[in-house]
Amino acid sequence: MITLNTDICRLLEIEFPIIQAGMAGGPTTPQLVAQVSEAGGLGTLGAAYLTPEKLRAEILSIREQTDKPFAVNLFADNPQDDFSRLTEVQEALRPAYAELSIEQPGSSFQSPDYGEEQFRLCLELDVPIISTAFGCLSPEQMKAAKGHGVLVITMATTVAEAIEAQAAGVDAIVAQGSEAGGHRGSFSYEQHPMGAQVGLMALVPQMVDEITIPVIAAGGIVDGRGLVASLALGAQAVQVGTRFVGAKESGAHAAYKQAIFDSNEESTVVTKSFSGRPARGINNRFIELFESAGTKALPFPSHNTVTKEIRGVATKTGNPEFMSLWAGQATRKLIREERAADIVDLMMKQAQALV
Amino acid sequence: MITLNTDICRLLEIEFPIIQAGMAGGPTTPQLVAQVSEAGGLGTLGAAYLTPEKLRAEILSIREQTDKPFAVNLFADNPQDDFSRLTEVQEALRPAYAELSIEQPGSSFQSPDYGEEQFRLCLELDVPIISTAFGCLSPEQMKAAKGHGVLVITMATTVAEAIEAQAAGVDAIVAQGSEAGGHRGSFSYEQHPMGAQVGLMALVPQMVDEITIPVIAAGGIVDGRGLVASLALGAQAVQVGTRFVGAKESGAHAAYKQAIFDSNEESTVVTKSFSGRPARGINNRFIELFESAGTKALPFPSHNTVTKEIRGVATKTGNPEFMSLWAGQATRKLIREERAADIVDLMMKQAQALV
Repeated sequence: MITLNTDICRLLEIEFPIIQAGMAGGPTTPQLVAQVSEAGGLGTLGAAYLTPEKLRAEILSIREQTDKPFAVNLFADNPQDDFSRLTEVQEALRPAYAELSIEQPGSSFQSPDYGEEQFRLCLELDVPIISTAFGCLSPEQMKAAKGHGVLVITMATTVAEAIEAQAAGVDAIVAQGSEAGGHRGSFSYEQHPMGAQVGLMALVPQMVDEITIPVIAAGGIVDGRGLVASLALGAQAVQVGTRFVGAKESGAHAAYKQAIFDSNEESTVVTKSFSGRPARGINNRFIELFESAGTKALPFPSHNTVTKEIRGVATKTGNPEFMSLWAGQATRKLIREERAADIVDLMMKQAQALV
Repeated sequence: MITLNTDICRLLEIEFPIIQAGMAGGPTTPQLVAQVSEAGGLGTLGAAYLTPEKLRAEILSIREQTDKPFAVNLFADNPQDDFSRLTEVQEALRPAYAELSIEQPGSSFQSPDYGEEQFRLCLELDVPIISTAFGCLSPEQMKAAKGHGVLVITMATTVAEAIEAQAAGVDAIVAQGSEAGGHRGSFSYEQHPMGAQVGLMALVPQMVDEITIPVIAAGGIVDGRGLVASLALGAQAVQVGTRFVGAKESGAHAAYKQAIFDSNEESTVVTKSFSGRPARGINNRFIELFESAGTKALPFPSHNTVTKEIRGVATKTGNPEFMSLWAGQATRKLIREERAADIVDLMMKQAQALV
C-alpha cells in the first residue's frame, strides 16, 4: 500500500512529503521557504549565489517566520575560474550584447567563491538540513555537519552517483530525473558532459533498489498525481521546483513567471549557454544566439560570471528572452501565481484522493 | 483511488492493463505476442519490416496460439527513398565495413514499402487492434479500419501530437516518454529533429488533461511499480517493450538480450545512426564510429536500408557492437530471460500489492 506518511517525514520532522527545491538565483525568498515549511512541507533556501552577509540575513529572516525545519541548498563543487577562452566566448556573445545595447561589455571577471563560508554559516546558525547539488560535501564538511546534528541531502542523476553519496554519509538522496528544471545535479561529468538525463520513471525504482537511504523524487512533478506516482516507484517524498517558481512568495521576475505560465512540455531545452553547466530552461533568444555561434561555453562558474551582465540587463528591462528561464517539463497546468501554502495543500489533497 | 481494472481493459477486451510493445525487427515473434495475450495482457506484433507474406503467416500463427485480442503495429509514415547523400554516408560507414571485414559493401539500394499492403492485410485477417508509430493512419485507412470495427492506437510524444491523433479518430494514445527504448514515435519532426524527449512523469498528466480518450504510458516501465505510478498519473495502461525483448519467447538475438541484461540506466543514447530516425539504444561501437564521423544520416528509411548489411553481418556473427540494441532506461533489474507470461504475472502481483 502507498502511504503519504513516509519515514522521511519523521527523519526531516515535516508533516508532508513535499520539498520545495533550493533554486539559486532569486526564486527562493525567505518568505517562500518559510511558507512552505509552515504549510507542512520542507522549504529550501537556494543559497549558492548568496554572499555570506545575505545568506546570514536570509536564514535569520526564515527563522523569524517559522519554527519549523527548513533546508539550505549549496553547490558542493565550486571549481576555480578558467577564462582562457574568454575572447572567443565574448565574440559569441556579441549578438546578445548588440541586441541589449550593451556597448562596453565587461572584460575582466572573477567568480566569487563563497562555498566554504556558506557551509560554515549554516553550522553557525544551526540550519537543520543542508542539501547539495553537483556532488557531496567534502569529508571534512560531512564530519562537521554530522557533529552539529545537521541532516545532509545530495542530488544524484544516476544510481552510481547515489551510491557514491550514500557512501559519503548523506541521509537522503534527491533522484533528479531528466524532466527537472534548472541545473542537472550530475557529478559524473566525464561520462555525461550534458548531465545524465534519465527519466524519473526509470531512475527512481533503479535507485531505490540499490541504496538503503530514502530517495526523494524530483523532475516534472507539479501535483498530487506526481507525488503518488513517485511514492509508487519507491520514493519517500518529492522535490518540486518549477511550480514554486510561480508562487506569489517566489522572488522570480514577473517575466520569468509569465514565461512559465505560457510554456508547455515542448518549451524547454538543456543548455550550457547561461552557466557553463547543463541546465534545463525555456528556450529563448539568448540560447538560440549563443548555441548558433557554435562556440563552447566556458566552464562553470566562469561562464556564469561572464553572462551575468546580460542577465542583469534582461532583468532590469524585464526581457525574458535574455533571462535564464529554468523550468521543468510539466508546466502546462501552471498558469497563474499561487500561494506557496496552497500549492502544498492542493498537492496533498489530490494525493490523498488517490491513495 | 487507483484501480488496475481500467476502462481500457474493457475497450481492448483484455484482463490486465499491460501491453507488450510492437517492436519491429525481430523481438515480437508470434509466440511472444500470443503468450502475452494468453496471460491477460495485449501482445503486439511489430510488423513494420515484415513482407506481406511473412505478416500473413505470423498473424495466422498468433491466431493458432490464442483466441484473445492482439495488436499489429505499423509505421504510419513511410517516406520515399532519398539516397542523394549516399556517397558521403558510405564514406562515414567505411570504418564499420572495415571492422566487420565487409569488403564490397552494397552500392545500390531500394527500401521496400509494404505500408499499404500490411494495412490491408490486417483488415483482411480481422486483426482486432492496429497501433501506429510516426503518426496516424491516413483518413482513408482510418475510415476503412473503423468500417471493419478495428480499434486504432497511435503513439504520441507531445500533447499536440496526441490532440492531432485524437482528432484523426484513434481510440487510444500511447504516451511515449523519453525513457522509452527504440524509435521515438514523434511525428512533429520539424520542431523536434531528434524526436520530442519529454519524461513520462511529465508527459502523462499533461496529456491526460488535454484529451478525452485513454492514455497508455510507455517508457522506462518494467515492473508493477511503474504500472501503478502510471495509473496514478492518469494513464489507463502501460506499454512495455524492453523487458519483453529479454523474454524467452522473444526473437531478439541472444547477444542483444545479453546486452540488455548487462546494461543500466546510463547505457543508452538517442541516435539516428542506424535508421535515420531518432531511436534509443545501448551505446556501442557502431554508434560511436558513425557519430564520430560527423556525417548526417540519410533520412529514414534509406539510412536503415543502407545499414542493413552491417546489422546483418553483426547478427550472423553474434556481434552486439554492430547491432541496433534498442532499449529503454530501466534495464538494471533485467538480468535474465523470463517467460512472457511470468512478466505479466509478476508485474500484476507487484502492482496489486501497491494499490
